[in-house]
Amino acid sequence: MSTTTEFQVTGMTCGHCEMSVREEVSEVAGVTEIAVSSKTGKLSVTHEAPIDDAAIIAAVDEAGYAAVRG
Amino acid sequence: MSTTTEFQVTGMTCGHCEMSVREEVSEVAGVTEIAVSSKTGKLSVTHEAPIDDAAIIAAVDEAGYAAVRG
Repeated sequence: MSTTTEFQVTGMTCGHCEMSVREEVSEVAGVTEIAVSSKTGKLSVTHEAPIDDAAIIAAVDEAGYAAVRG
Repeated sequence: MSTTTEFQVTGMTCGHCEMSVREEVSEVAGVTEIAVSSKTGKLSVTHEAPIDDAAIIAAVDEAGYAAVRG
């Protein structure tokens, strides 16, 4: 069963920023789909198994941005 | 003899944008140094031999932004 979890990301300004976030979040185990918008800061992560919010937030941090559970 | 030519670039919003511009402009023959700021839009291109402004403007366009001779 797929679940989508929303996060709010601050600091993204352009498509390159979205791509950086996407790259890092896609490496988190269990993630099957990602939607991210630099305009709204919204990050939607779809996953099969439950995922740890902290793992997503850490991935966003790795990309150079800050996320909170939305 | 080194000469520096200034351009004004529109559309850059962050360090990723600067990096894209830098990458493309660095491929133009004769370019020895590049300074670029997404904050001011200023692009300074240092070159040994005379360079064609159009080649720099085309490189910036390739990166996804618009430049004019500054």
